[in-house]
Amino acid sequence: MILVTGVYPVGGHLAGWRHPTAYPDIVMNLDAMIDLARTAERGKFQALFLADGNAVRQMDKTALFEASAPSDRPASFEPTTLLAAISQHTDHIGLFATATTTYEQPYLLARKFSSLDHISGGRAIWNVVTTSYPGDAVNFGGAFPEKTDRYKRAQEFVEVCKGLWDSWAPDAFPQDKTTGQFLDSGRVHTLDHHGESFTVRGPLNLARSPQGYPVLFMAGQSESGRELAAQHADCLFSVAQSKEESIEVVRDIKGRMATYGREPHELKIIPGVRVNVARSRDEALALYRELNALVSPALGVQYLSSMVKEDLAPYPLDGPLPDLSAEVNGITSRRQSVWEMASREGLTIRQTYQRLLAADDTPPFTGTAAEVADELEDWFRSGACDGFMLSVPTLPLGLERVVDLLVPELQRRGIFHDDYSGATLREELGLRVPSNPHFTPQTV
Amino acid sequence: MILVTGVYPVGGHLAGWRHPTAYPDIVMNLDAMIDLARTAERGKFQALFLADGNAVRQMDKTALFEASAPSDRPASFEPTTLLAAISQHTDHIGLFATATTTYEQPYLLARKFSSLDHISGGRAIWNVVTTSYPGDAVNFGGAFPEKTDRYKRAQEFVEVCKGLWDSWAPDAFPQDKTTGQFLDSGRVHTLDHHGESFTVRGPLNLARSPQGYPVLFMAGQSESGRELAAQHADCLFSVAQSKEESIEVVRDIKGRMATYGREPHELKIIPGVRVNVARSRDEALALYRELNALVSPALGVQYLSSMVKEDLAPYPLDGPLPDLSAEVNGITSRRQSVWEMASREGLTIRQTYQRLLAADDTPPFTGTAAEVADELEDWFRSGACDGFMLSVPTLPLGLERVVDLLVPELQRRGIFHDDYSGATLREELGLRVPSNPHFTPQTV
Repeated sequence: MILVTGVYPVGGHLAGWRHPTAYPDIVMNLDAMIDLARTAERGKFQALFLADGNAVRQMDKTALFEASAPSDRPASFEPTTLLAAISQHTDHIGLFATATTTYEQPYLLARKFSSLDHISGGRAIWNVVTTSYPGDAVNFGGAFPEKTDRYKRAQEFVEVCKGLWDSWAPDAFPQDKTTGQFLDSGRVHTLDHHGESFTVRGPLNLARSPQGYPVLFMAGQSESGRELAAQHADCLFSVAQSKEESIEVVRDIKGRMATYGREPHELKIIPGVRVNVARSRDEALALYRELNALVSPALGVQYLSSMVKEDLAPYPLDGPLPDLSAEVNGITSRRQSVWEMASREGLTIRQTYQRLLAADDTPPFTGTAAEVADELEDWFRSGACDGFMLSVPTLPLGLERVVDLLVPELQRRGIFHDDYSGATLREELGLRVPSNPHFTPQTV
Repeated sequence: MILVTGVYPVGGHLAGWRHPTAYPDIVMNLDAMIDLARTAERGKFQALFLADGNAVRQMDKTALFEASAPSDRPASFEPTTLLAAISQHTDHIGLFATATTTYEQPYLLARKFSSLDHISGGRAIWNVVTTSYPGDAVNFGGAFPEKTDRYKRAQEFVEVCKGLWDSWAPDAFPQDKTTGQFLDSGRVHTLDHHGESFTVRGPLNLARSPQGYPVLFMAGQSESGRELAAQHADCLFSVAQSKEESIEVVRDIKGRMATYGREPHELKIIPGVRVNVARSRDEALALYRELNALVSPALGVQYLSSMVKEDLAPYPLDGPLPDLSAEVNGITSRRQSVWEMASREGLTIRQTYQRLLAADDTPPFTGTAAEVADELEDWFRSGACDGFMLSVPTLPLGLERVVDLLVPELQRRGIFHDDYSGATLREELGLRVPSNPHFTPQTV
C-alpha cells in the first residue's frame, strides 16, 4: 500500500491552523515543512505531496480570503525549489511537485524535474496539471485556454519531456582523465520535435537522472484526464466518495491502458481520504467539533459557495442546497459530488459545509487506528486503490497520530511496508525504471 | 571587496578536469558542489556563481564537444533547484542563479527566485541574462529574437518581477489563531501590468522575501546591457583586459545611473579575473604548463575557433590570427578582444589559445598570494571595481589555494572582510533592502 501526505503545514480543515497544537507560523515556514517531511519519513510514507497554483485565489471573497490557509495557499514556496531543499533533510521519501503544462515550457520544466531527480537521488515526482482554475490565466497573458486545448498541449508537453529525458545514455560521460574524453558523442540523442504546440530540438543539458523519468503523477477524472493518465501516468490521484465508486474508477482507467501497450500494474491509483485517527473514537470526534466551532456561519457559507461555484448566501442556512447539477466553467466534479452527497443525505447548507470543512470532499475515516485501518484495508483488498493520499485535520498533530497509531497498525496487518527498500522511488512504488529507447547498454 | 566564485566543479582551464587532484566525477555531482560551496564559505566569499544556458552547445565541433567540460556545461543542474539544495549546507554565502528573460515567464521566474530567497534566508541572486547564444532558441520554438527585442523584453520582464515582489506588505500575514485572521487583505497589492510583452495581474503567491527583491546581477557591456544595468542591476559582472579599461567601464556605467535616480554605490561592478595562486610563482606557472600540455593543437584550435566564431583550422598553427575585426551575429566582445590582444602582442594561433585555455579572456593573475593580492588591491583601490569574480584553473585545488593563501592576505591588508556580518546578502554587499513602495509600515 502506497501512502502519500501533504507537506503544506496547515492541515486539511479550514480552521486547522487555529488549533492550539498547530504551527504558530505557517507562511513560508521551511522548518515546519522539514519537520513534516521527517515525520512522514519516520512513518515510511512513500511520498510528500505539494499542490500548487499560479495565482492568489479567492481574493474577491474577503471573509474566506482573510481566514483561509488550507486550500488556497495565498503564499507558499515554489515546489521544485522547496523540495530540492527538503531533499537535503530526508533520505527516502518521494518528492511530489506540481507543475502546469499550460503555462510552463517543456525544456525548462524537463530541466528542473531532471535536476530535482538528480539532487534527491531518484525521488522526484511530477504532478502533471493543466490548471483548471481560470483565474491563473491573468498572470500569463489573460486568455484561459479551452479544456480541449489544454489537454492537447499537455499530451504533447509530456511527450516532449519524455523525449528530452531520453537525451543521454547512462554511460554518456566517461570523464576519462587519461584519454581526455569527457563525453561520448555517440551516446547522445537529439529529439528534434516539431509538433503543434512545441518545436524543441534537444538534447537536454542534464545527464539521464536516476529514475530515467521522474514519476509522473496525474489527477483529474474527466474523460481527457482519464485518457492522458492511461497513456502516461505512473500514479493517479483520484477522488471517490465510496469504495464502490473507487473500484469503478480503477476498473475504467486501468481498462484503458491496454490501448497504449501498458499493463494495469504500471499505474497506481491513489484516492484522497481524510483521516482523523486518535486513541479513541471520542478523541477523534472531539477534534472535529473543536475545529468546526472555530468556523462562523458566514465563513462556512462562503467556503461552501466557493467550492460549488454558486453563491449560497441568499439561501437559508438551515435549509437545503439549491439545485447544483448544472456545469460551471466545465468544472463538474466537486460541485456535483457535493450536491449529490447533500441531496442523498438530506443535508442543510450548514450541515454540508460542516461536513466539508476538512478542505475537500474525500471520504472521512475517523476513529481509532483499528477502525481507520479496517476502512483502508477494505478499500485496498477490494481493488479500490493501490494506496491513499491522506489528509489530516490539523498539523503536525494529525500526521503524528497517523505515524504513531495508524502506520504500526497497517504494518501489523501486512498491508504496508516495514521500511524503505528501493534504490529509487520508482522501485519503492513497484514501477519500472524506463530504459533509454535510443541506446542499448554498451558492451565494453 | 566582494569576492564571487563559480560552483561548477570543473575549473576554468579547458583541461582542468584532467588534473590528478580534480574531482574524478563532475557530471551532476552534487557532493562536489556542496564541497566547493563550503570551501568558498570558509573563505568568506560573498557569493557562489552558476552560469547557465538552455541547450547542449558545441555539438557540431566533435573534438571540442568530447573533450570540453568547462565552459559549455553539456550536463549540469538547473540552477534554482541546485542552489536551494546547496542553501541547506551553507549559512551565509550568496546563491547566484542564472535565468533568461528571453524564454522564461515572469510569474514563474518571480516565484522561483522569491522561493529561493525565502529558503536561503535572504541569499538569492538572479543573474539576469537575455541569452545571446542563438542555438538555445531551437529548444523554444526555433526563432532567435533580435538583440533589441530581447532587451526590450528583458526590461519589461524585470519590471514585472519587481512589481510582483512588491505584492505583499511584510506584515500581511498576522496568522492570528484567536481572531481567525490569517491574512490582512488590506496589505496586498495587485500589480495589474499590461505591457508590450506581458500581461500579468498578480499578486504573487509568495510572501515578501527577506531581501525584498533578490540581488539583481547582470552581465554584458553592450550599449543596451549597460543601460539595463544602470537602471536595474545591483551587481554587474564585467569583462576588462586591464585596470584602465575597467576604470573606464565603471566610470561609464555608474555615470548612467543618475538618469534613473540611483547613486553610484547602489551598483557593484565585479570584473572576472583568472587567479592562479600558489606558494611560489614557479608552482603556479607549473600548474599552467601541466594543464596546457593536456590540450592537443587540434583541440586548442577548435577551442579558439569557437571562442572567436571563426574556423582557424585552415591557418598555420604558428602563424598569426586572420583579421577578426568584423562582427558575427552581433556578438563582438570576446571575438574582438581576443583579436586585439593577439595583434597587440603579436601572438600566433598556438600562443593565443594557450593564453586563453583558462576558459575566458579575463586578465590572469598568477603567482604568490602577495603578488596576486598586489594586483587585486591595485584594481580595487584605483576604482576599477567593487570586487572580483574569480576563476581558478582546476577544482578543488585552485579554490583551496585561494581560500588558504590569498584570502588571509587580502584580510591582512584590510580590503576583504574578516567574517560575514549582514542579516541578508544585500546587507553583506552594502546594498539597500528595498522597502515595498505600496505600503508604509503599519502602526499598531
